[in-house]
Amino acid sequence: MAAADLATDHLVLDPAARALLFTEARTANTFSDEPVSRDQLRAITELAKWPPTSANINPLRITFVTTPEAKARLLPLIFEGNRAKTESAPVVAILAIDLDFHDRIPQLFPVRPEMRDLYKDDLARREQAATFNGTLQTAYFILAVRAAGLAAGPMAGFDAAGIDAEFFADRPYRSILVVNIGKPGKDPWFNRLPRLDHEDYVEYL
Amino acid sequence: MAAADLATDHLVLDPAARALLFTEARTANTFSDEPVSRDQLRAITELAKWPPTSANINPLRITFVTTPEAKARLLPLIFEGNRAKTESAPVVAILAIDLDFHDRIPQLFPVRPEMRDLYKDDLARREQAATFNGTLQTAYFILAVRAAGLAAGPMAGFDAAGIDAEFFADRPYRSILVVNIGKPGKDPWFNRLPRLDHEDYVEYL
Repeated sequence: MAAADLATDHLVLDPAARALLFTEARTANTFSDEPVSRDQLRAITELAKWPPTSANINPLRITFVTTPEAKARLLPLIFEGNRAKTESAPVVAILAIDLDFHDRIPQLFPVRPEMRDLYKDDLARREQAATFNGTLQTAYFILAVRAAGLAAGPMAGFDAAGIDAEFFADRPYRSILVVNIGKPGKDPWFNRLPRLDHEDYVEYL
Repeated sequence: MAAADLATDHLVLDPAARALLFTEARTANTFSDEPVSRDQLRAITELAKWPPTSANINPLRITFVTTPEAKARLLPLIFEGNRAKTESAPVVAILAIDLDFHDRIPQLFPVRPEMRDLYKDDLARREQAATFNGTLQTAYFILAVRAAGLAAGPMAGFDAAGIDAEFFADRPYRSILVVNIGKPGKDPWFNRLPRLDHEDYVEYL
């Protein structure tokens, strides 16, 4: 049975939604001039905020770069091979983790506000929890961008220390991914890359 | 304008799909006896495999614990507070990263097979890339479980070194999350926890 048939038989999510978020969506490498509105960006974040993080810590922080002035600050910090696509994107999101996320625990996890104290004097533990859960939230965010009918272009190729110094000098944030956002432009896709064979990454015990 | 209105106006994803994956889905804490089929599990992985990883490295490895024998090996390695829910779940997924993922680069990223050599003698770099991208894939997996109409119960509370020794003794895998999977049982949900106010984690430059 082909993968498409399996999905049809065993998933509840409708085929259009599967295509939009998972099977047909692609990482865009060029973007059109069509603007992305503030309301679209807010709808993306309102959707992405719901899936789970450990003890609801929600460590992700999002900076939307929307103006030419802010883009000019960002571009020199993007690796050269990625710069043209970032230049063409109407909006760029800097996704970062807040290493002081624990100060929000009494608000976000009122059933156990004392969990804040577990983290207070343990930066390594905060880094681990913020990185893991902020990365989960990064994936939710990428799929939420697609849910708005927009293409996401996630990029790991940037000067993270430089971005942190330029954008987060006064905050304990650490950038983890930069995501171009917009409608695809001319020749936006590379050829689709293969995935592993099922047997090479899944086992049943 | 309320969040729901914003979403209606500015998202392409249909409301049923939004509810299924993001807004109404909840982390389950009990599970019913209803079985989860091998075909459902395969459909979940076939959906989850498509969203992006850096240079398509796909470091996530999935072990589905489906038999009483395998469950008996797993349960002592789950922290006590999580054990009852894991016991009640018809299937449990152990999500792990493969620290030798770079050996697959020639297959997965044929446009630059030499990227394998960048990782070959640099374990720290492999750990960083596998952790980040395996965590992205973990989030895609959680949403794909929901896409099958099942509840996911992700748990960080387990003995990771113990699981790696018990299940991956002969492989360079490192467990990063355990996810209970099934239909919700009796009283499956805690009260929904709050999220941050928009202004507290999103900025527009």
